[in-house]
Amino acid sequence: MTHSLLTADELDANDALASLRDQFSLPEGVIYLDGNSLGALPRGVERRVERVIRQQWGERLIRSWNESDWYDLPLRVGNRIAPLLGVGAGEVVVGDSTSVSLFRVLASALQLRPGRNVVVTERNNFPTDLYIVEGLKQLLPDLEIRYWDESTDPSSVLQGAGVLMLTHVDYRTGRIRDMRTLSAAAHAAGALAVWDLSHSTGVLDLTIADDGADFAIGCGYKYLNGGPGAPSYTWVSPALVGASQQPLAGWLGHARPFAFTPDYEPAPGIRRFITGTQQVLSLASLDEALTIWEGVSIAAVRRKSTAQTARFIERVEAACAGQGLTLASPREDQLRGGQVSFTHENGYPIMQALISRGVIGDFRAPNILRFGFSPLYVRFVEIDRAAEILAEILTTGVWRRPEFAQAQTVT
Amino acid sequence: MTHSLLTADELDANDALASLRDQFSLPEGVIYLDGNSLGALPRGVERRVERVIRQQWGERLIRSWNESDWYDLPLRVGNRIAPLLGVGAGEVVVGDSTSVSLFRVLASALQLRPGRNVVVTERNNFPTDLYIVEGLKQLLPDLEIRYWDESTDPSSVLQGAGVLMLTHVDYRTGRIRDMRTLSAAAHAAGALAVWDLSHSTGVLDLTIADDGADFAIGCGYKYLNGGPGAPSYTWVSPALVGASQQPLAGWLGHARPFAFTPDYEPAPGIRRFITGTQQVLSLASLDEALTIWEGVSIAAVRRKSTAQTARFIERVEAACAGQGLTLASPREDQLRGGQVSFTHENGYPIMQALISRGVIGDFRAPNILRFGFSPLYVRFVEIDRAAEILAEILTTGVWRRPEFAQAQTVT
Repeated sequence: MTHSLLTADELDANDALASLRDQFSLPEGVIYLDGNSLGALPRGVERRVERVIRQQWGERLIRSWNESDWYDLPLRVGNRIAPLLGVGAGEVVVGDSTSVSLFRVLASALQLRPGRNVVVTERNNFPTDLYIVEGLKQLLPDLEIRYWDESTDPSSVLQGAGVLMLTHVDYRTGRIRDMRTLSAAAHAAGALAVWDLSHSTGVLDLTIADDGADFAIGCGYKYLNGGPGAPSYTWVSPALVGASQQPLAGWLGHARPFAFTPDYEPAPGIRRFITGTQQVLSLASLDEALTIWEGVSIAAVRRKSTAQTARFIERVEAACAGQGLTLASPREDQLRGGQVSFTHENGYPIMQALISRGVIGDFRAPNILRFGFSPLYVRFVEIDRAAEILAEILTTGVWRRPEFAQAQTVT
Repeated sequence: MTHSLLTADELDANDALASLRDQFSLPEGVIYLDGNSLGALPRGVERRVERVIRQQWGERLIRSWNESDWYDLPLRVGNRIAPLLGVGAGEVVVGDSTSVSLFRVLASALQLRPGRNVVVTERNNFPTDLYIVEGLKQLLPDLEIRYWDESTDPSSVLQGAGVLMLTHVDYRTGRIRDMRTLSAAAHAAGALAVWDLSHSTGVLDLTIADDGADFAIGCGYKYLNGGPGAPSYTWVSPALVGASQQPLAGWLGHARPFAFTPDYEPAPGIRRFITGTQQVLSLASLDEALTIWEGVSIAAVRRKSTAQTARFIERVEAACAGQGLTLASPREDQLRGGQVSFTHENGYPIMQALISRGVIGDFRAPNILRFGFSPLYVRFVEIDRAAEILAEILTTGVWRRPEFAQAQTVT
């Protein structure tokens, strides 16, 4: 790890992305390493949302659906996300929660593979993704859910399957799944590949179309900094979108929404993957947050991310040796996403002690300390300092204090 | 219509709800009669959303999920809506678009009536409600969709049906369906009653539990003034909620969302009717808008609404006689919701001419001029003035000008 030859100050001074931090409003005295759960506040959001409320809603009222083009906002925001995925303009739509978007693409993918009523996923997938498959199975009782174990060749479990549904970056460990190889395995078995990119977009240099994804969804409030509960995005391969029928058919996905015809006729492209009226305030917040990416090289973001996660591993392992921490994230740069996770049997109170010192990461049951590094605003000096504070907490045993044994925080 | 004995000024002076208008920010020079499409801006919203953005998101970041209780916001906002529906606290949840909420309750209702794979609705229902049934039928190919014609006794068409799905107030005419009689007819046939209250809540004095509804949904951006695309609400009869399984199973509807278990276990009550992470900015806006209802008698709101719609009919018919307008709304007060609709063969340019004069209603294909009266902020003097302006437009023929023949506005 050659970076350790440089000081954190030198790394920050050499960081071509360093000035992007000025576009965020971050509280004093906090080292924020939870941008993989809720991204920090972009400075422009407050003014933008104020304008939507005061001028568009308050002054222009219903006329803003046309004048401010609220109607096309799901597609315009999608166009800002498309380059981060490595896909084209007009291929991404934004709206609704990640879970709802997953339901839409999963049902669509299965419908494109009639007679193959099998979804293959991982038992360790993000739970809500599993819940969505289970919910779909309520409506499709013949649906079979099979679990792939990552230590095995996926081809046998994919036999006869209609869909392989995976999360690209594991929410606990940060491990990256090989999208290209796994999508190819799905295709070889006659299945379609559905990817959850929630922990990928905005931190990895994605090329999902080239890597064989057929459908992809992800959330807007992590590395995209869209705000709490920001709407999710949906991409469908242009080769499939015209044949896709998503079951949450609503008027905003209709070919002629203002004709008010009683029969549903899906819009020609990705627009058919939205349903009802979208929450404009939250959508505008995400739109504004995405303006930060204009002119930013996602390859440079990925390089910085890798350097930051590598440095954190190195610093923590050097400072906390013998303190019971075990690295849960891949050591190999190319297998690791934008986060670093350590396990510790007392992970919960340790994280509470860290938060009380202003280092905000999060805890995931049963024993995971999770640290996310958003390259748009995290500094190298913060990484070194976070590792020092973690070492202090472990070596002093301050985490044993009763106030750190409280109820679990939410993320 | 005894109100015509009083002047509009006198009616406004006698209006016990008149001061509520001060809680809204309305543009100068506009008579806003489209609150049934997008409610006006409550004054408190801007400050509230600014606080959520700056303090809760910007300063406290991920900690706000606990500290500001974003997690329970869908239920807390639901508790503000419950009295407007005539149901109890803890019975309403808020989140996602109206269409998504309808999908959830419709699928749940069908699941509670196994072997009765029939949804009865009206062909003239709000189109997106029909699209949602059609979308569900993609997943449930055996589902039969039957249309009830309001001129007939519903009992025959309900034979063997699992669900009667109706909109309480017709979006074109404002006609109120008889919830009590129709729900009873559904129950007599062994079906459940699903009601869309989008054009009812906040303007009618609802008692949906007493009137036999089993499920109800509606939108937050009309008479509830939650802002563009504000999230929808869902109510499920307490007798049914524990047995209801909605298919959009997501982590926020889980009994123990932070246990991150791979198997879905629905939360005990109405919370199971949400899915994923909710859009907090839009939800907070709706929450703030609903504070206006504290201490307001919904019965008084309904009385004012009836007086206003009756006066508008009377004034328009007096001032526009012979100009080709036909009342499309019921003349009987008890059958008419919060809007008044007239048909005119040149409805579209006439509405554009009205808007250019500052009277904002909307047009619905093929020939409907729609005027909504939100009793929280519409004044009687505005009603008289709107009728005068409509008469001027019709008698002068100014609507024939080419600039009024443009593309259709959105609602």
